[in-house]
Amino acid sequence: MALTVAEVAELCSGKLEGDGGATVAGVASLKSAGPQDLSFLAQARYASQVPTTRAAAVLLAPDSDARREGPVIRVEDPQAEAIRVIHALGLQDTSHPFEGVSDKAYIDPAAELGDGVVVGPFVTICKGARIGANCVLYPGAYVGRGVTLGSDCVLHPHAVVRNAEIGNRVVLGPGAVVGFDGFGFHPTAEGVMRVPQLGRVVLGDDVLVGANAAIDRARFDETRLHKSAALDNLVHIGHNCTIGEYTLIAAQTGLSGGAMLGARCLLGGQVGLTPNVEIGDDTRIVAKSGVSRSFPGGGTLSGSLAKEHGAALRDLIELRRLPELAARIRKLEQQQS
Amino acid sequence: MALTVAEVAELCSGKLEGDGGATVAGVASLKSAGPQDLSFLAQARYASQVPTTRAAAVLLAPDSDARREGPVIRVEDPQAEAIRVIHALGLQDTSHPFEGVSDKAYIDPAAELGDGVVVGPFVTICKGARIGANCVLYPGAYVGRGVTLGSDCVLHPHAVVRNAEIGNRVVLGPGAVVGFDGFGFHPTAEGVMRVPQLGRVVLGDDVLVGANAAIDRARFDETRLHKSAALDNLVHIGHNCTIGEYTLIAAQTGLSGGAMLGARCLLGGQVGLTPNVEIGDDTRIVAKSGVSRSFPGGGTLSGSLAKEHGAALRDLIELRRLPELAARIRKLEQQQS
Amino acid sequence: MALTVAEVAELCSGKLEGDGGATVAGVASLKSAGPQDLSFLAQARYASQVPTTRAAAVLLAPDSDARREGPVIRVEDPQAEAIRVIHALGLQDTSHPFEGVSDKAYIDPAAELGDGVVVGPFVTICKGARIGANCVLYPGAYVGRGVTLGSDCVLHPHAVVRNAEIGNRVVLGPGAVVGFDGFGFHPTAEGVMRVPQLGRVVLGDDVLVGANAAIDRARFDETRLHKSAALDNLVHIGHNCTIGEYTLIAAQTGLSGGAMLGARCLLGGQVGLTPNVEIGDDTRIVAKSGVSRSFPGGGTLSGSLAKEHGAALRDLIELRRLPELAARIRKLEQQQS
Repeated sequence: MALTVAEVAELCSGKLEGDGGATVAGVASLKSAGPQDLSFLAQARYASQVPTTRAAAVLLAPDSDARREGPVIRVEDPQAEAIRVIHALGLQDTSHPFEGVSDKAYIDPAAELGDGVVVGPFVTICKGARIGANCVLYPGAYVGRGVTLGSDCVLHPHAVVRNAEIGNRVVLGPGAVVGFDGFGFHPTAEGVMRVPQLGRVVLGDDVLVGANAAIDRARFDETRLHKSAALDNLVHIGHNCTIGEYTLIAAQTGLSGGAMLGARCLLGGQVGLTPNVEIGDDTRIVAKSGVSRSFPGGGTLSGSLAKEHGAALRDLIELRRLPELAARIRKLEQQQS
Repeated sequence: MALTVAEVAELCSGKLEGDGGATVAGVASLKSAGPQDLSFLAQARYASQVPTTRAAAVLLAPDSDARREGPVIRVEDPQAEAIRVIHALGLQDTSHPFEGVSDKAYIDPAAELGDGVVVGPFVTICKGARIGANCVLYPGAYVGRGVTLGSDCVLHPHAVVRNAEIGNRVVLGPGAVVGFDGFGFHPTAEGVMRVPQLGRVVLGDDVLVGANAAIDRARFDETRLHKSAALDNLVHIGHNCTIGEYTLIAAQTGLSGGAMLGARCLLGGQVGLTPNVEIGDDTRIVAKSGVSRSFPGGGTLSGSLAKEHGAALRDLIELRRLPELAARIRKLEQQQS
Repeated sequence: MALTVAEVAELCSGKLEGDGGATVAGVASLKSAGPQDLSFLAQARYASQVPTTRAAAVLLAPDSDARREGPVIRVEDPQAEAIRVIHALGLQDTSHPFEGVSDKAYIDPAAELGDGVVVGPFVTICKGARIGANCVLYPGAYVGRGVTLGSDCVLHPHAVVRNAEIGNRVVLGPGAVVGFDGFGFHPTAEGVMRVPQLGRVVLGDDVLVGANAAIDRARFDETRLHKSAALDNLVHIGHNCTIGEYTLIAAQTGLSGGAMLGARCLLGGQVGLTPNVEIGDDTRIVAKSGVSRSFPGGGTLSGSLAKEHGAALRDLIELRRLPELAARIRKLEQQQS
């Protein structure tokens, strides 16, 4: 599969500057692109690499002042158009290394498999599980009793799902654990009781769960991730959390039990939310923040006792004035004496 | 299995207000309870849901002023009594999806299995391992050479245990790793040497290890979790740590090598302890704290260089005074000039 | 295998003080050593244990003033010499519980296995994978299509490697995930696009990856860990990161996409790096730091907006002066009035 530079320009609805005859067979970064690769400038910090890239053509924003001798294609959104070309060229390998149902898998006779389901070796599918059409289960994947998977889901190696209802096109990364018991204890005079965990997990369509991430089942009711929510590696979602659609959560962030995130939120890595906080739609939370109260949404939060980011920055500026304040006090004291 | 509301009141040694005839077949949250469910008010923040819950009856503390038209049962500890009813009704499914010993498992001939042990498919049990009566090993569980498991343990899918001695009724969550090598390096003039890890892990009775958590074997001697200690998901316990009985550690917290926690401590999530710190019994550590020195126990710690929580709060109050202090300095300067 | 104390002294090029006739068959901590064990004092904090240890002999630095009645061997580096003796006595069990190629494994016919490769049960090796001589693959290990492993690698239970080229003597801990997709999203007016991940992971010789750690494949090009880099448990390495040789990263630390660490860096636990920061060689980063800009290398960084450690400490000292500054302002105000 290949396109000419001129065909790429047309595909991207871009304006070609320079010759359109060269062949484009791949997409690569500016630094590593070869003469058959398309490249693109998505972040100004890489502009200095444009003049020297060996790429067949470079996607540039209309107002970019990066310069090169070879062909350039002007497009509104170079990142998005590069992705479009990757898909057009079929560069992303969406095939899987297994076909059919492995005779090295364990499938309970009372499980149901839809058409086209692929089951790799060492997969376990328990009683009452229903696997939608075209799902792909990699080696070691575990589907517990009564779990429902929609169609076109991918469970990567050793992904575990129990006590759950899973939508369509959901991806569970390697080692991801969905539906294990929440961490609940109740102290009494006679000692600590374990709180029974009876609820489940519901994952909407197109949810993505990263490698070795964990989503606990609810105590009662549901832990729910809405459509297209995505978790990076090693994220922890406690029991009874709710996460809105299109919300993205970077690696190693943790939500305590009952925390609620609205739609289209963006959380950096290593963020922590305390139990039961409620964060509104379209909130951004800076990496490493600790969020211990609720926010209505729409803003950016930061800090270890997270507040609105502007206020947090003002706090930092105040802090940096400390040596100056101390000097001014000293001066006042000298004048006094 | 079902009880009448009156029978529930009797079971809980509670005082019934209203009619005791309705049937209770489940326990649910106030919000989702149906007419055959018992519900309960454990946290004042949910009091507003009491009037509208559809529950057959609601467990309330004697002094709660929440009101509803339907039946109420007054009990000292609504949370504990709800758990009692859950157990009485058999609502927690403690069965397992496997029976007997799977012929798809790998069991070394020189391993010993107690009575009633359940071994799922794709389980590995190595030479010299001894599995106590009624243990349940889920698919992918791995028990290394010479490991001893007490009775009634549950190893969830892909749990790995090596170099370890495990008590009774221990639960290892999916993907939990017990007994891998500690992370030890010794810099020398000729480069960095890896420090051999020769010790083991000892887990007391009723220990719980969360999904994808990791407990390293000791360098020499033992990494030890005492009776009923519990780790949430993605917790890291370095080599040679000691954790006291009934201590609870929330998700993503990490203990560096040699750290010691006393009994009945409560650690929030994403806490970090530096190597070899010693924390006494009954200490609480606020989420995200960084603990870099030892504390005698009994208090609450917080902050990134954790100190006694009251002192940490006073620091915060001082900090918030900064703009006011700056204004007062400015005023003094104006008076001076 | 055993040595006399005199032979140990000779092996370590040490100076024996006391009788050299006792037998040394093990190496142990001061506290737990028995009469056939060698022990050593590596940290001054354990000096008080020297007089009472039951060890056959104790390795002490030339200038240590710790005293005991029994034999002492003076060596420049007690830690390094203890490791030497551990190796000489063969105390570290480097054997594996499996031999040959298990008939319970799944090996694609188009995979290549070098001489002496050990494949445990429930291992998956996909098409085009090449496994170097003497590699050991524990149960549940997964080697994806086209992956190359050098010789003498160890993949512990459930380690997953895809889209990767692996050097010699690399160790992947239990549950480690190498080569899963990076977490990339591109917001557009029509919604969020997933950014295709086309690159791979390259691990140099002697790299160590801890339990349940995750290393993402690059978007394009490579995520690369150079020779002898080591990751502790639950570390996250985002797409396109580069980590220099001999760099050590403690547990639960996370590197965002494109972050670069030089050679011989030491990172504490729970550190976070924001995308694309570049940290020079020989940098130390204190546990829990958040690094959001680049540093040239050679220093120590700390703090949630990490800066040079000395400056961070001075900030803390300024902070502690706040109550005193407030008191001095109060005094000035009283004098004024």
